[in-house]
Amino acid sequence: MQRSIATVSVSGTLPEKLNAIAAAGFDGVEIFENDLLYYPGSPADVRQMCADLGLTITLFQPFRDFEGMSRQQFAANLERARRKFDLMQQLGCDKMLLCSNVSPQTSSSFDLQVSDLAEIATLAQQFAIEVGYEALAWGTHVNRFRDAWARVKAVDSPALGIVLDSFHILARGDRLGAMEDIPVEKITFLQLADAPLMKMDVLEWSRHFRCFPGQGELPLAEFARDLTAKGYHGPWSLEIFNDGFRAFPTAPTAKDGYRSLLWLEEQTRKRLPESDAPLFSSAPLARYDGVEFIEFAASEDDACALGAALRPLGFAQAGEHRSKKVELWRNGGANVIINHQPHSWADNFYQRHGVSLCAQAWRVKGAAQLLKRAQDYGYPLWQEAHGPDERELPAICAPDGSLIYLIESAGEEGWHADFHLQPTPNKDFTGIDHLALGLPEGSRDNWVMFFRSVFGFELDSEYSLPDPYGLVRSQVLHSPCRTIRLPLNMSQSRDTQIARSVASYQGSGLQHVAFAANDLLTTVTRLEAQGMQPLAVPANYYDDLLARYGESGGLLATLPALQALYERDDRGNAFLHIYTPPFREGRFFFEIVERKGDYQQYGASNAAVRLAAMQTHQ
Amino acid sequence: MQRSIATVSVSGTLPEKLNAIAAAGFDGVEIFENDLLYYPGSPADVRQMCADLGLTITLFQPFRDFEGMSRQQFAANLERARRKFDLMQQLGCDKMLLCSNVSPQTSSSFDLQVSDLAEIATLAQQFAIEVGYEALAWGTHVNRFRDAWARVKAVDSPALGIVLDSFHILARGDRLGAMEDIPVEKITFLQLADAPLMKMDVLEWSRHFRCFPGQGELPLAEFARDLTAKGYHGPWSLEIFNDGFRAFPTAPTAKDGYRSLLWLEEQTRKRLPESDAPLFSSAPLARYDGVEFIEFAASEDDACALGAALRPLGFAQAGEHRSKKVELWRNGGANVIINHQPHSWADNFYQRHGVSLCAQAWRVKGAAQLLKRAQDYGYPLWQEAHGPDERELPAICAPDGSLIYLIESAGEEGWHADFHLQPTPNKDFTGIDHLALGLPEGSRDNWVMFFRSVFGFELDSEYSLPDPYGLVRSQVLHSPCRTIRLPLNMSQSRDTQIARSVASYQGSGLQHVAFAANDLLTTVTRLEAQGMQPLAVPANYYDDLLARYGESGGLLATLPALQALYERDDRGNAFLHIYTPPFREGRFFFEIVERKGDYQQYGASNAAVRLAAMQTHQ
Repeated sequence: MQRSIATVSVSGTLPEKLNAIAAAGFDGVEIFENDLLYYPGSPADVRQMCADLGLTITLFQPFRDFEGMSRQQFAANLERARRKFDLMQQLGCDKMLLCSNVSPQTSSSFDLQVSDLAEIATLAQQFAIEVGYEALAWGTHVNRFRDAWARVKAVDSPALGIVLDSFHILARGDRLGAMEDIPVEKITFLQLADAPLMKMDVLEWSRHFRCFPGQGELPLAEFARDLTAKGYHGPWSLEIFNDGFRAFPTAPTAKDGYRSLLWLEEQTRKRLPESDAPLFSSAPLARYDGVEFIEFAASEDDACALGAALRPLGFAQAGEHRSKKVELWRNGGANVIINHQPHSWADNFYQRHGVSLCAQAWRVKGAAQLLKRAQDYGYPLWQEAHGPDERELPAICAPDGSLIYLIESAGEEGWHADFHLQPTPNKDFTGIDHLALGLPEGSRDNWVMFFRSVFGFELDSEYSLPDPYGLVRSQVLHSPCRTIRLPLNMSQSRDTQIARSVASYQGSGLQHVAFAANDLLTTVTRLEAQGMQPLAVPANYYDDLLARYGESGGLLATLPALQALYERDDRGNAFLHIYTPPFREGRFFFEIVERKGDYQQYGASNAAVRLAAMQTHQ
Repeated sequence: MQRSIATVSVSGTLPEKLNAIAAAGFDGVEIFENDLLYYPGSPADVRQMCADLGLTITLFQPFRDFEGMSRQQFAANLERARRKFDLMQQLGCDKMLLCSNVSPQTSSSFDLQVSDLAEIATLAQQFAIEVGYEALAWGTHVNRFRDAWARVKAVDSPALGIVLDSFHILARGDRLGAMEDIPVEKITFLQLADAPLMKMDVLEWSRHFRCFPGQGELPLAEFARDLTAKGYHGPWSLEIFNDGFRAFPTAPTAKDGYRSLLWLEEQTRKRLPESDAPLFSSAPLARYDGVEFIEFAASEDDACALGAALRPLGFAQAGEHRSKKVELWRNGGANVIINHQPHSWADNFYQRHGVSLCAQAWRVKGAAQLLKRAQDYGYPLWQEAHGPDERELPAICAPDGSLIYLIESAGEEGWHADFHLQPTPNKDFTGIDHLALGLPEGSRDNWVMFFRSVFGFELDSEYSLPDPYGLVRSQVLHSPCRTIRLPLNMSQSRDTQIARSVASYQGSGLQHVAFAANDLLTTVTRLEAQGMQPLAVPANYYDDLLARYGESGGLLATLPALQALYERDDRGNAFLHIYTPPFREGRFFFEIVERKGDYQQYGASNAAVRLAAMQTHQ
């Protein structure tokens, strides 16, 4: 399987791009012409640089607005093609991408288009070059792959084939089911790109919002399956135009691109177990059974302050580590570890980020498989130094360097054995409902690739929320059965709560943790009577709840006294929750939630109330 | 004229918004319901706060998804309306915005919609409230203002009128010419918003990209004229959903909003000189005759370095100020002043921004009018302390605190008299072709309002350019006859050349100045022979020029030796230019340009070559 990527997909100068692409593991690279134009060396220098890096130049692209023009223009276009073929020979590349013409002047005559394409094919043949004709989704007359194929078929030259680009095809709503009559050897090249579903002009969508397979919402897996079933065994090549990728560091983007091809191959293999194509296939996925504990890195002082913040939520200290300055706090099924062991891994994390979530532990069935998957996808593992009688907890490093511990849900919860345990009084929480992370703008796709590839997590649609000082975007990832839920929040503005939280960590970090309550109203009533201070909710909010939902059997009347919030979905499932004021000037906060019925959301309509209340609180 | 704005248009908490809105000069405010919900005080508190600030609450909005639902839902909706009417009474507001229903469940029955609207009108009447029905551009059945009017007319109640929103009407391509049969007294309310032209889903466009009148491309002036001609004398109210405004400081956005209404009134007055409406009308615009000089704030050392950077471009020192440490450098019609006078205004600017453009001087006919306009639009003026025999140069402060001096083009160029002058050898440049400013992301609209309102500058369409480390957006403003041209460049990414330049200034600042050459090839040939080092251009770029344009009569063959760049527009007009390497690690650079024929652009296709070359240069 030849894995390739277009230089336009990553940031940097051409040498930076090529180095990062080779280091990520790719075998091939499409040279996007502008990257060559901007490079001070010659095409032969680029050829040598690629050869030294072990990269084949799989494609030279794009060649535009060729067919169907005035005869004078056509002569100039053919001369332009001749110059580019000459350049390609210096580059050592024998495939060129020809995009369908987008000029308003191009003729609609099928015959003229075919005869023009025949001429470029004849010329290409003299250079031993194959031209691949691609239907841009916004081409003037040729904008679906079947249009392109009709012309390629009519030309019938060995030097002219078709380029299939998943974005152009899927964005138009086409599917490859309709390609029975295209012989596989007429597929000159395959370009792959995913994208989030967006209602906008397809050209703008394509130029700014493409992403790697798995980061978006197009049916890439079915696309790759259909093509593989057809017998296509040529290069798979990524071609991504993405404003974020243009600004993100080169190396991690290139790595994510490589992972996205592995991921897509794995999806294809699942759908085509009998395929003879050399597709990547990793260990099977695990089953997820929720978050067992979360762990904070803290100083001695912070540990005190964190304990003082947890106690009003009904947490009590359930244990001390047998050999380290590590405390276990607990309320029912919710476990919080506070690690203030000097000179430890957590201490190192603390030195970089301050008081922050340094680890989370998931109950899984199939930890070994996940560790294997992480390695296959190129993510580092971690094994903490441990005392002679202490348990080993294997972990995978997340993109911010925090850890995800894996605990076999089938076995006893061995990690307890490292603590001197004592009973705790409360059983308010069944566990951790969700962990919301704050991300620097631009790093969403990097995180999405991690959870999608190693863990097989699924994406909900992204939505945006108003903070008083800017919009916040929220992208939820969850395990297939939703036992682990991870909203990722980010904001372009620098003054929102989330942006200030991210700035205080100097990177990604916990925004909030939501504890799942058995019976929120009873729990909160008791905790507040004992002194818990919830984040204050404006009275106007409750008036609006009544206007929106009516009395709801008296339930709504009980909320204001508790400062509890409420949301109901279209199917009548409800969500009750409260927030705490932020810990340490907005770094993170806690939430208590209760899901009624089959409620699957996160109370988004109330998040704006919280964001405003937090600003008021400050 | 009652000037109003919706609270959603600016950032901040409700008290911050109201204070900024009052301080900007508005008489009225629309309370966007969410701002009330998030506010800890009661509606009566908000009423009092507005009264204390001298603000009338002109509208309560929005009330959504009311008409045409199931009868059970309709009863709930009517109860919801009753609660909101009650709230409005506490708020002291007697007009409510009712948006057309966007629910897929709403009935298409005209009669049902009318009977539902009649019911809310009857209820509103009991509260002495008037409901204004607005066609959202994406309403399920009612999405054009004529649809809304047909229903309002059928209801025929004094408590139900129509709300006209310029965005919803103009975005659908409708014009008010078609409103003859709508009596002016049935217009409950008028909302105004502009927007750049964008090919995207109208809902997304409306929710994220609205802007103040004059900042976008919709025909707002004609819209306001038609309405005023019709006899509408009610409030003009801004309703802007803009991601940038949500993140920008509250006070300057509110001020720009107020200016945008003045601007729109002025446009209306021009188109309706006979109108009896109390429309704002400022002094007439000036005529612009180019940039007379630019002035750098510098230290003693920087002054040396700047001189050393100008000399290879053929500049020579043409004068020293009679009383200050201020030098005049000149090549033909291009004047550059370097100001390193200690304890001066320029020194103060230097202390804040380092070596930077602190002023530009424009030749104008009508300086006094412009000064009056600046004051009317709320921009500060500046008059430098000057010696007894020195000339006064009036100036207007730009948004970054730099100055725009106004020099009456009719009179002698009096500012020369302050210098001991000496002749200079070269006449390469006719003047300054354009000044490109780098802006922090989010401040575009603030600058656009300044040049549009005071100076009547015009907008070209925005475009984007690839820097190796992120996309760059460019928005050109120019005087009506294009004698003054000001590209504004900005970038969301922090690693682009423009972002690093902006960071080095800690704000807006000069990105480059382009000197206009009489004969670029001759000038550059001579200057380079004398040692001028242009920014190096890759050879591949020249190969591509040949492929794109052919030999062009031998012209293109002369370019590589000079490192000159070339662009040709669709009509055959050409642009020749060279860049210098950046001054002080990318802070700014110089460009020499020659426009051939009627070329009106800025060589955008070459900007990416420059951006890459500058990264390579570093």
